[in-house]
Amino acid sequence: MGQANEEGWDARTTLYERLAAELAEDIGRGVHSPGERLPSVRQLCQARGVSPATVFQAYAALEARGLVHARARSGFYVAATAHAAPTAPLAAEPQPGAQAVTSGELIFELLQSTRDAEVVPLGSAFPAASLFPFDALSRCGARAMRRLDSQSIVGALTAGDTALRDALRQRYAQHGVAIGPDELVVCNGAMEALNLCLQAVTRPGDVVVVESPTFYAALQALERLNLRALEVTTDPQDGVDLAALEALLRRERVAACWFMTTFQNPLGALMPAARKRQLVALLARHGIPLIEDDVYAELYAGGRRPPPAKTYDDAGWVLHCSSFSKCLAPGYRVGWAAAGRYAGAVQRLKAMSSLATSLPSQRALAEYLAQGGYDRHLRRLREALATQQQRVRRQVLRFFPAGTRVSDPSGGYFLWLELPPDIDSLALHRRALAEGISTAPGALFSADRRFHHHLRLNTGHPGDVRLDQALRRLGELASEALRSSR
Amino acid sequence: MGQANEEGWDARTTLYERLAAELAEDIGRGVHSPGERLPSVRQLCQARGVSPATVFQAYAALEARGLVHARARSGFYVAATAHAAPTAPLAAEPQPGAQAVTSGELIFELLQSTRDAEVVPLGSAFPAASLFPFDALSRCGARAMRRLDSQSIVGALTAGDTALRDALRQRYAQHGVAIGPDELVVCNGAMEALNLCLQAVTRPGDVVVVESPTFYAALQALERLNLRALEVTTDPQDGVDLAALEALLRRERVAACWFMTTFQNPLGALMPAARKRQLVALLARHGIPLIEDDVYAELYAGGRRPPPAKTYDDAGWVLHCSSFSKCLAPGYRVGWAAAGRYAGAVQRLKAMSSLATSLPSQRALAEYLAQGGYDRHLRRLREALATQQQRVRRQVLRFFPAGTRVSDPSGGYFLWLELPPDIDSLALHRRALAEGISTAPGALFSADRRFHHHLRLNTGHPGDVRLDQALRRLGELASEALRSSR
Repeated sequence: MGQANEEGWDARTTLYERLAAELAEDIGRGVHSPGERLPSVRQLCQARGVSPATVFQAYAALEARGLVHARARSGFYVAATAHAAPTAPLAAEPQPGAQAVTSGELIFELLQSTRDAEVVPLGSAFPAASLFPFDALSRCGARAMRRLDSQSIVGALTAGDTALRDALRQRYAQHGVAIGPDELVVCNGAMEALNLCLQAVTRPGDVVVVESPTFYAALQALERLNLRALEVTTDPQDGVDLAALEALLRRERVAACWFMTTFQNPLGALMPAARKRQLVALLARHGIPLIEDDVYAELYAGGRRPPPAKTYDDAGWVLHCSSFSKCLAPGYRVGWAAAGRYAGAVQRLKAMSSLATSLPSQRALAEYLAQGGYDRHLRRLREALATQQQRVRRQVLRFFPAGTRVSDPSGGYFLWLELPPDIDSLALHRRALAEGISTAPGALFSADRRFHHHLRLNTGHPGDVRLDQALRRLGELASEALRSSR
Repeated sequence: MGQANEEGWDARTTLYERLAAELAEDIGRGVHSPGERLPSVRQLCQARGVSPATVFQAYAALEARGLVHARARSGFYVAATAHAAPTAPLAAEPQPGAQAVTSGELIFELLQSTRDAEVVPLGSAFPAASLFPFDALSRCGARAMRRLDSQSIVGALTAGDTALRDALRQRYAQHGVAIGPDELVVCNGAMEALNLCLQAVTRPGDVVVVESPTFYAALQALERLNLRALEVTTDPQDGVDLAALEALLRRERVAACWFMTTFQNPLGALMPAARKRQLVALLARHGIPLIEDDVYAELYAGGRRPPPAKTYDDAGWVLHCSSFSKCLAPGYRVGWAAAGRYAGAVQRLKAMSSLATSLPSQRALAEYLAQGGYDRHLRRLREALATQQQRVRRQVLRFFPAGTRVSDPSGGYFLWLELPPDIDSLALHRRALAEGISTAPGALFSADRRFHHHLRLNTGHPGDVRLDQALRRLGELASEALRSSR
């Protein structure tokens, strides 16, 4: 393998590929407008010191991606659609009715495809393990376990380790959220917390409002509990459309909402604080619980942690769920629910379904939080994720066909791509997987398998040659798919 | 606190209490038959070197427990019912129909009562933590966690850590049970495993056959999934009555059976191997899955590990669930399901409901199993539990009122007491709890709250003064309850 430089080029990248990428970026940035004539072959040869063959190859590659087109005896022109590239994906128009969820099988198949170590993990749900302080956690775990006694085991039954719960409540308080001493239940990851909350507020057959697109684990949870999904219009930047939500609540009998209010998966949308406050007020007026999946809150790229909707929850309607799996300790499976007025019900369901959460993990985390390195770790993690995200985003703009829209989230580690409508992203996923590249196709993120020309890409892995080549190859496969559809 | 001698007497035990206990034991062992005249006051004064007042007090205490009765001007006689004491509890006659389970609230309340460190844990579900090798496990955990890498996290997703699963399959193989490489799913304790298996083989409203009495977590699981319980006659020694089961299967449409075939909780019943084989054959003929809860299998008092029903499962109808929580690592929450033909479905449900099991716990256990001290630990544990069980059993025979029947299990750490029918064990539980002694009343173990004069006592805690005094006091409270009912 060659060495990659900062922009992700390795020694094997040919001259024409570099030239094509640079021209694509110029087009993307608006240096050349749609319809504008591009520099002639001779001009480029002189300016860049390359051969005419290199320039012709570069223009051909850009033509294949739909960014430029050739006019006979006149030269190369920026395509009219080229400028769609750097803009954000559009908000989807959800189906009007609630529907049963049956996508579990597809989700399971697709998730399996990210498990292979040989596969480039662009479809993965987790950031790279190298970003996490496993050594420090292990030391803390060993120290904490030596102090394990009978009483800690019994005391931690069901609601969780007391020291960990106290530390969690302190962190909530630091962020201006008051959590009662009996409100927290430590769970086996946020996923168990979310599932228990969902079961606490619904009965089989109920309707639950979810975003559009939706995090697939929410769809799985709905399917498992025989609930129906009702999607609400969701802005790729600002999250759930409250007017659309209010209209739904008037029209349908809704048991609960399940939203990711901060860095929504897959969109990356962040509801502004004012909108979160309005959301809480709206749901309180209707007496509808909000399950707030807030696992990415610590991964903000800006200077300040976005407040969760739970901040504004005076009446206990918000069941706030989060975990350490995305920001500190993947594999430890420690999450929690601060379930407001449903805390007792969630605790009973926890006792019934898995009794308690693994104590070694809880104690390692409590010890780690007590020793005080968490915020330093988070600062480094945020910086790494923000840098990686911008890097992958540049490469998407460079390598993907014209008309590709891409999100620009202010946190998290996902990009949401809206490809040209003729590209079937599930077929593209399967093509890429055969070449050792996983992706998360849009079909994962809706009960009715819409978003068929969308992709979610994981940007949580540090750039290396393998990743760069995978992104370029994915762009090529997308261009090929587009070409063959015409 | 005074020092306790081997038989549990401390310095504060009065002479008359010792004398009463010794006489009760003689009666229990048949030294004196029902109706027989007991030694006179003068004889006893001479034989034991005590005062007449001491003998009178002892006989009065035995009379209060219904073991003896006084005849005017004639002396003291063994009561006709006194001999019921050392015999086993009777098999219950279950309700004929399936019924919805609604005992969750009571179960939750009763379980909470065992959480207080100040309470004597006779109602607890776990053995004493001092019996487990937490130091060795901690060292193993620390060693294993230092080798944690990204690939182990991804590789352990859903089905569990590969090394642990391999070690588990090897242990199955050592006991003559063949488990396929994809059959095992590591779960958050046996409880999650059992819950996922139950969900994999049922739909809401289905009927599930359970033992009578039933482990309360099975009732909770049925309640959570809106299933109906159908109890089958269960022999306190030999477990499920197969003729009764076959009759049920002919009469009712049954979705699954959930049985503890070895050291059933609370009875302590052990199905003989031949009966287990017949059970598997019977269910295979009817195409009905068996969820086999086998968490006590390692805790046998005899020389050989009883084979699970899974041993005879050629067709994949047995979903075998177990864990390390009762025999090695309470609080670690590591269990598993070997789910036969339902293994894929269980794995999907695991992915949907909690994604994966805590990795630090799994790796600590895998490392511990690899280093080879497990069987040595188990031998010591079995010996300790068997000794403690016999000790508590003797004290029950000594202190509880005449007519009390008590199980004599060949493994596990529970005794099942059938008190005289006039004693309300739920009221007794509440009385005892007010004095700092927890118990598990019979109402916990049935969907219709039968077993109202039964108690389960935990014998998994090493004898000490506090425990001895609690057992004596519990016997006194039972005698008082019996007296006041007459």
